[in-house]
Amino acid sequence: MDEKISRKNFLTRASIVGLGALVGGFATQIANADKTQNWSANKWPWPYVELDPETTAQIAYEEWYRLWCGGTVIYSVFHQLAQKVGEPYKSFPIDPFAIFEGGLAGWGTLCGSVNGAAVVASCIIGPMTQEGCEDGHIIASNMLDWYSHTNMPIFVPKNPKANKKTIVHTVSESPLCHISVGKWMHASGYPINSPERKDRCARVAASVAYKLVEELNKWHKGKYDENIAWFAPKKVGITAQFNCAECHGAKIPKPPTPLKKL
Amino acid sequence: MDEKISRKNFLTRASIVGLGALVGGFATQIANADKTQNWSANKWPWPYVELDPETTAQIAYEEWYRLWCGGTVIYSVFHQLAQKVGEPYKSFPIDPFAIFEGGLAGWGTLCGSVNGAAVVASCIIGPMTQEGCEDGHIIASNMLDWYSHTNMPIFVPKNPKANKKTIVHTVSESPLCHISVGKWMHASGYPINSPERKDRCARVAASVAYKLVEELNKWHKGKYDENIAWFAPKKVGITAQFNCAECHGAKIPKPPTPLKKL
Repeated sequence: MDEKISRKNFLTRASIVGLGALVGGFATQIANADKTQNWSANKWPWPYVELDPETTAQIAYEEWYRLWCGGTVIYSVFHQLAQKVGEPYKSFPIDPFAIFEGGLAGWGTLCGSVNGAAVVASCIIGPMTQEGCEDGHIIASNMLDWYSHTNMPIFVPKNPKANKKTIVHTVSESPLCHISVGKWMHASGYPINSPERKDRCARVAASVAYKLVEELNKWHKGKYDENIAWFAPKKVGITAQFNCAECHGAKIPKPPTPLKKL
Repeated sequence: MDEKISRKNFLTRASIVGLGALVGGFATQIANADKTQNWSANKWPWPYVELDPETTAQIAYEEWYRLWCGGTVIYSVFHQLAQKVGEPYKSFPIDPFAIFEGGLAGWGTLCGSVNGAAVVASCIIGPMTQEGCEDGHIIASNMLDWYSHTNMPIFVPKNPKANKKTIVHTVSESPLCHISVGKWMHASGYPINSPERKDRCARVAASVAYKLVEELNKWHKGKYDENIAWFAPKKVGITAQFNCAECHGAKIPKPPTPLKKL
């Protein structure tokens, strides 16, 4: 009987210990699940830690050859934050933003790198529709202005894939891919499919990633200070900035040679 | 002793039952956690169920007044799929894409509604960098072409907020917000901040959402057939389509009146 009881007790205890271990195991799983689940991509700002602009730009340069301009700017920031912070960066679908390439699917409209930078700023800081989240919109807009007036590219990568000795710089005076790329092609003489043009666009994306992280770091320190003027469409009279002459003027060149084949 | 044993047994059994319940509870939580966690935003295609274009467009029209053009196109599709499918739509940050408004933060570049449509197609179908995911890129590109050549807006909402009796239609010949909006303002006579212009842009976004869902439904049925020609930058010689005369030509008007104040 004693033995029976002992055995019964042993079995009962063993069961309890086993159940305890099972519960413990479940509890750990739950804790891990909670750790992963206790986040929302729809609460702002997203958790942010300061990033190194140089490191970010180098990542953006290298990853351009996989994700092109827009995808790589998003990757350069979100992939680092996924490693350093976790969610919501880990669950953000970065690669589909490869579609920003070449001014959206190669159409030459908005340069993908600033489109990507706008997505990053707006996701981290929050949409302008939320009170207190205006800085994302302002950073994106300042980025478009800075992009348009900067002698690009400014970032020099380690081990560039082309333009190894020197690179031509141009000011686009526009955030449009077609104009930005077109002016550089005209000044450098390199065609669209050349390694030199690809290296140039990879460096432009890297330059944008560098600037974006500088801006985000300032914002994170509470030291973000808008230092340029940009305008609401209501003031300009149309969706535009006061940069009209780049398109409304005599500066537009004739379409280049390949079009003569049409 | 019997009583003691009985009590002990009772307590032991009660503990086991209690632990069992606890384990059961944990197991349910784990199952729920797994149900939520067993998804990835980085596996393609994302789960998709066919949506009703009319319903989607109506949602897009109404939500435009909160999220503007790009945000509302994404919302109209992803919010429905979050309800019908769940993840990864539930954890996608929709609202930050309000930044696509007015050709990105009001700069008049790429129309936000097609920028948003491209993000939706590329997220659901997958990035072109993944084998077998080219349809996202193709749908986005076809959408830009369709947008440029359609007499917009085509969707008529229930209870429109303006243009209640009739609305002016225009063909933008471009996916750029500034040109699309500018041509409509010129033809209709309504200024940028009028209820009529806002209703027009809400209807354009709704028209894009309608078309996008038609395309996604065809793709989901395996019946997606590209019916237009678009060109890789390599063929055009620059990031562009063969639509040069809209910018390189004599058709560009002088900047409108407000600029005289500069």
